[in-house]
Amino acid sequence: MRQITPENLEDFIRGTALLGTGGGGDPYIGRLMVAQELETCRAIDILDPDELTEDHFGVSLACMGAPTAFVEKLPNASSMIASMERAEKELGRKFNCIVPLEAGGINATIPLVVAARLGLPVVDGDGMGRAFPEFQMTTFNIYGADVNPFVMSDDFRNTVLINTDNAHRTENYGRPVCVQMGGIASCASYPMTGPVIRDTCVPRTISLAIEIGAALRSARSAGEQDVCEALVDYFKTSNPPRFATVLFDGKIQDILRETTAGFAVGKVRLTALDDPDTEMLVTFQNEFSRASIGDQTLAIVPDLITILDRETGEPITTENLGYGQRVKVVAIAAAENMRTPEALKVIGPRCFGIDEDFEALETISWK
Amino acid sequence: MRQITPENLEDFIRGTALLGTGGGGDPYIGRLMVAQELETCRAIDILDPDELTEDHFGVSLACMGAPTAFVEKLPNASSMIASMERAEKELGRKFNCIVPLEAGGINATIPLVVAARLGLPVVDGDGMGRAFPEFQMTTFNIYGADVNPFVMSDDFRNTVLINTDNAHRTENYGRPVCVQMGGIASCASYPMTGPVIRDTCVPRTISLAIEIGAALRSARSAGEQDVCEALVDYFKTSNPPRFATVLFDGKIQDILRETTAGFAVGKVRLTALDDPDTEMLVTFQNEFSRASIGDQTLAIVPDLITILDRETGEPITTENLGYGQRVKVVAIAAAENMRTPEALKVIGPRCFGIDEDFEALETISWK
Repeated sequence: MRQITPENLEDFIRGTALLGTGGGGDPYIGRLMVAQELETCRAIDILDPDELTEDHFGVSLACMGAPTAFVEKLPNASSMIASMERAEKELGRKFNCIVPLEAGGINATIPLVVAARLGLPVVDGDGMGRAFPEFQMTTFNIYGADVNPFVMSDDFRNTVLINTDNAHRTENYGRPVCVQMGGIASCASYPMTGPVIRDTCVPRTISLAIEIGAALRSARSAGEQDVCEALVDYFKTSNPPRFATVLFDGKIQDILRETTAGFAVGKVRLTALDDPDTEMLVTFQNEFSRASIGDQTLAIVPDLITILDRETGEPITTENLGYGQRVKVVAIAAAENMRTPEALKVIGPRCFGIDEDFEALETISWK
Repeated sequence: MRQITPENLEDFIRGTALLGTGGGGDPYIGRLMVAQELETCRAIDILDPDELTEDHFGVSLACMGAPTAFVEKLPNASSMIASMERAEKELGRKFNCIVPLEAGGINATIPLVVAARLGLPVVDGDGMGRAFPEFQMTTFNIYGADVNPFVMSDDFRNTVLINTDNAHRTENYGRPVCVQMGGIASCASYPMTGPVIRDTCVPRTISLAIEIGAALRSARSAGEQDVCEALVDYFKTSNPPRFATVLFDGKIQDILRETTAGFAVGKVRLTALDDPDTEMLVTFQNEFSRASIGDQTLAIVPDLITILDRETGEPITTENLGYGQRVKVVAIAAAENMRTPEALKVIGPRCFGIDEDFEALETISWK
């Protein structure tokens, strides 16, 4: 059985930072929280989706809120447990495993913290295969799992329990409550049996994060010339392999960032190192959603767009982007079940207010 | 046993319009809704607070929202029943009576509509003794009844169930959800046994509304010179008697009104008919909260401030106020249990952002 241990924690965290695609909060905080739990429990068990049976009953845990809020106000495992317990009371059944909602950012680590506290295993998979800004943007929802009951808790274990006819409405009702809760809310949602988790999740994203982190670490320690190229190479051998490419090598010129209605939204402008007249624009709503040069889109959601330090390959979250940073923009193809027609209705470009059709990263790149 | 029947409905509605103190929505809509129910059920039973026993288990029903929204979007009895049923499921016990949250406006009639549909009696009393803009502003809350669970439903019977450690927080979490629900939400709150209702409510406000309406009607039909004076006279004999007075006789010069964050807020400026240089200012947050001339406060929450048509004595709600209307401003002392030190902490002037102490209407008038 796979485990998260003190030995692979650093790799895992760096991988989740990459999968956070600019959102999901500062991974440093998540690392400290898991490390503290590991001091007591030594290891957290990870369940492969193929190991799940009818006897498994899992819940998806995640913080709602703008990543900019996470910097000031730490995620709270105790209020996360309050949400879980409220959902258990509502359903009359105890959860025996935890499913990450997101593979990226702090929300990839929160399930581990709670699992460590409660002695439960975590499923090696998630509902987003990366990070996304809204709760309906999950493969759980896309492939028919029920978001209800959706429970939010504040730091005082006050709860708000939402039951609606669709997950997008749940997001709309929950988001302003999150703002009232101080910009961050601990949410339990998508209660699912083992087979439902297996059939609707993006599989093996914890393993993926660990491997991404290991690839970055070994490239760095080997003193390879280009860590970002090493990352692209890793994806040729990932399980399954995925197309990845360095889109841009440049310097940050400008960043416009606003925390509004519970989201961090904005755009980053970069100029190429080898040609200051070539500009790339990367827009974000918590996470990066589109990278373009002029009118030409080079990568677009749900494909993953990341900005990495050009020397160390360290992923940079939107709140840590700053003028003059030398970075590379790396894009990675999303998992297969995130690119189907039904998926694109929920996580395609138009769901982010971008008026264009999805085009796969590899198709654009091969043109 | 007292009843609401087609015979006293008109009186009741006019009385609730007055007790709405400018807020609570257009009473015309409430009248139509109750009249329609009475066609089927003929009469709605009213329970005196003294008739309540341990076997009674009541819930408070009210719409949340700005009265300006009620004009466009009717209150919905079916979603109100959805909220009740959700609360019953949570509590594992059926309600056998309904308690109005407010004595004024549409929220005074909504409990009657639901009671008629379900064949339940309504308690002759409420939590506000008038209308107030927020859910913690109740004598239920002031005197120790628990607001939890607080259930909100939209028109599609989607529910949001809130459990918090205090009613003000519940209001803060619920209000933005109400905005997302389209500006109006059907709320079930303050589940209480008979003795708790009896000990915490403002008693006999349905009876009061009927008598106010009857006083206005008979003054009008008797062709008495001044309907507003007749109203003031009625309060000398109400049970218990209350101080009431005509504060101003004038014309509306100016009205500033804004629907913001789920409330209708603003102010009305009036000039005296006999002296255009004398101006009164009446401010409101859904309901009128303060009437003043220059620096001198003449009436302030929780005392009741109403604006009536100067000829017919018809109460005018804030959304129906308009330039040039000739009106009288009438103030009425609040019920005794709304003026205690503990009550003023929750419904006193500072709770409406007015930086002054409460002074009783009769004290100001006798100065």
